[in-house]
Amino acid sequence: MSFEKFKEMHLEKINSHIQRIFDEQLRNIDVEIKDLIVKTKSFALRPGKRIRPLLFILGYEAYKEKNVIPYDDLYLIAASLEIMHAFLLIHDDIMDRSTLRRGKPTLHVLLNEEYSKFVNNEKIGEDLSIVLGDILIFYVLKTLSSIKIPNFQLFLNELSECYINTAYGQILDSLYSSRKEYPPKNISFKIAELKTAYYSFYYPFYLGYLISNASIQNEKEKIRNAIIPAGIAFQIRDDIISTFDEKSGKTHTSDLKEGKFTSLIDLGEFDENFYSLLKKKDKNEKELNILINLLRKSGAIEKAIEKMNSLFAESLSNVEFLGMKSEYKKLIKDMIESLRSI
Amino acid sequence: MSFEKFKEMHLEKINSHIQRIFDEQLRNIDVEIKDLIVKTKSFALRPGKRIRPLLFILGYEAYKEKNVIPYDDLYLIAASLEIMHAFLLIHDDIMDRSTLRRGKPTLHVLLNEEYSKFVNNEKIGEDLSIVLGDILIFYVLKTLSSIKIPNFQLFLNELSECYINTAYGQILDSLYSSRKEYPPKNISFKIAELKTAYYSFYYPFYLGYLISNASIQNEKEKIRNAIIPAGIAFQIRDDIISTFDEKSGKTHTSDLKEGKFTSLIDLGEFDENFYSLLKKKDKNEKELNILINLLRKSGAIEKAIEKMNSLFAESLSNVEFLGMKSEYKKLIKDMIESLRSI
Repeated sequence: MSFEKFKEMHLEKINSHIQRIFDEQLRNIDVEIKDLIVKTKSFALRPGKRIRPLLFILGYEAYKEKNVIPYDDLYLIAASLEIMHAFLLIHDDIMDRSTLRRGKPTLHVLLNEEYSKFVNNEKIGEDLSIVLGDILIFYVLKTLSSIKIPNFQLFLNELSECYINTAYGQILDSLYSSRKEYPPKNISFKIAELKTAYYSFYYPFYLGYLISNASIQNEKEKIRNAIIPAGIAFQIRDDIISTFDEKSGKTHTSDLKEGKFTSLIDLGEFDENFYSLLKKKDKNEKELNILINLLRKSGAIEKAIEKMNSLFAESLSNVEFLGMKSEYKKLIKDMIESLRSI
Repeated sequence: MSFEKFKEMHLEKINSHIQRIFDEQLRNIDVEIKDLIVKTKSFALRPGKRIRPLLFILGYEAYKEKNVIPYDDLYLIAASLEIMHAFLLIHDDIMDRSTLRRGKPTLHVLLNEEYSKFVNNEKIGEDLSIVLGDILIFYVLKTLSSIKIPNFQLFLNELSECYINTAYGQILDSLYSSRKEYPPKNISFKIAELKTAYYSFYYPFYLGYLISNASIQNEKEKIRNAIIPAGIAFQIRDDIISTFDEKSGKTHTSDLKEGKFTSLIDLGEFDENFYSLLKKKDKNEKELNILINLLRKSGAIEKAIEKMNSLFAESLSNVEFLGMKSEYKKLIKDMIESLRSI
C-alpha cells in the first residue's frame, strides 16, 4: 500500500472524530462560550496534512498482533493528537504574531475582528486564544481519560514528554529568532529536532507502537533511528523551499525577512556583514537580494541538499531494522519518500 | 484540630514537593532553557495560601479508611495542584496585564525585564510566559503518570473537567470585564462559581475524596453542597474587601477602576449614569468617589454581607451531611470559618 492510499483510508475518520470530541464538549455549554468553541472547532478542522494522527495509526497498525482497542477509540486518540496540534498552533501564532494559518486568519486575528466590536480591549483575540488553547489540552485529557487505553499511564507519560520537548524547542526558537547576538552553530538543527522531528514524526508513531501493546526489545531506539533523521531532513527541505522555491524559480524570502536562523544559515560560512543585514528589521528588496546572493555563493544550499538527502537515506536504511512485517516497512519508506514532496 | 494546625502540618511538605517536581525536570535540561525554568520554579514557590493542595489532602484524610497511597505520592499530587495553579496565574496575568503577583512582579513582567536586553522583541516576556505556563501542565501530567494513583482515569477526567470549567469562567470574566454593554444580571455569581468556588474549593477537596478510594452514595453531590456556597461567599467577601477595606477604613478601588462587574455591582440597583461612569477608562479620584458613594447608597454592601453570611451558613450546615468522622467535619467547619478571615 502507498502512504497516499493509507491516508485516504483514514483521513475522513480522523476528521469526524475531531468533530466528535468538540461536539461532546459543546453539549450543555454556556451560550456565551459556545460561539468561541465553535470557532475553535472550525480552526482545528481546517484542512491539513494530519501527519501526526496518520503516523499514530500507522505505528499502531504496523505493530499490533491483534486489535487491542476498538477502532472508534483509536480514532479518538488520533484525533486528540490533531487537537493538541491545534493548541500548539494557536499559542505559537500568538507568539509569532502570525496572521495566516492554513490559508485563513489565525484564531487570534479572527477573534480580534469578531469581538473588538463588543469589548474595550484591542487584544481580546490574543487573550481569548490563550485560554482557548489551554482548553483544548483539557478536552483531549477528558477524551483520553474516558476510553480504555492499554498502558495508559506510560502513554500519558510519553505524551507529556512530547509536549515538554516541543515547548523547549519553541522557547529556543523564540529566543534565537529575535536575539541580538549570533546564535551558537547548529542551533537550527536542535530546534528542528525538538519542534519537527520529535514532535511531528517520532512521538506520534511511537505512541501508536505503545498502544499496540507490542513489546520488542530496543524498539524505541530503533524507531528513533528510523524516524528522527527523516524529520530533520523534512525541516531542512522546508527551509530550502521557503528561501528558494525550486518549482517557480521565484524566491520566497519570509525566513530571510524575519531574520530566522534556519539550517541554511547554519550550513553556510558568512561574514559579519551578512549577519548584520540578516538581523536588520524591515529589509528592502535590494537588501534581500544581497542576502540571497550571499546565500547562493556560500554553498549553503548545496550543503543543505546534501545533508537532507543523506538524512533521508539514513532513515530509509534504518527502517529495515524495525520489528514489523515487510509490507509496513514498505509503507513507512513510502511515507518518508512522500515527505520530500509534501 | 484547627485548620491552622492542619496547614502547619502539611505546608512544608507541599512546598518541598513542588520543588521536587521542578528539580526532577531540571536534570538534563538545556542550559539556555534552565534559567527560565528556575525562574518559573521560584514563581510557583512564592509564599501563598496553598488552599488547593491543603483541601486536596483534607479530602483524602477525611475519607480514607486506610492509607491507599504513600504520603510521598499524596504530596506529589497536592504539589501538582499548586503547580497547575501557577500555570493559571501565569496565563491570567498575561491576559489581565497584571504587573504584580504575590507581592512581586508577574512572570511576564520579570522576563521582559530580564530578556529584553538580549532580544529584539518587546513582548518576549509574554511570549515566553505563554509557553512556560503550557510546560507546567505537562510537568504535572508527567508527574501524575509516574506514580500509582487509584482510579487514575477517573481522577484525570475530573481534573480535566476542573480546568475546563475554570477556563470557561476566565473567558466570561474576560468578555464581561471589558464589554461595552451592561452584562446580564448575576453574571458575577456565575464567574465566582466557576473561577473560585469550583476551582479553588470544590475540585481539590473532591479529588482528595476520589483518591481516598471511599465510595459513598451521593457523596459527590453532598460535597458540592457543603463546599460551593462557601466558595461563592469567599468571592463576595473578596469583592467587598477590594472595594471597602473594612479594617483600615480606606478604600481599595482597583475593582472600580477596572470597571469590574463584581457581586457588589450585581446586588445594587443603579441608573445608567453609574454604569457609564463605571465603564469609563482612566477615572479620576473624584469620579471614583462618586462611584463609591453611589455604591454605599445602593444598599449593595448590606446585601452582599447578608448574602455572604447566608452562604457561609449554608455550607456550615451542609457539612453535617458529609460521610466522614465528626472530627473532620469540625476541621472543615474551621476551614470555612477561616475563609472569612483569610
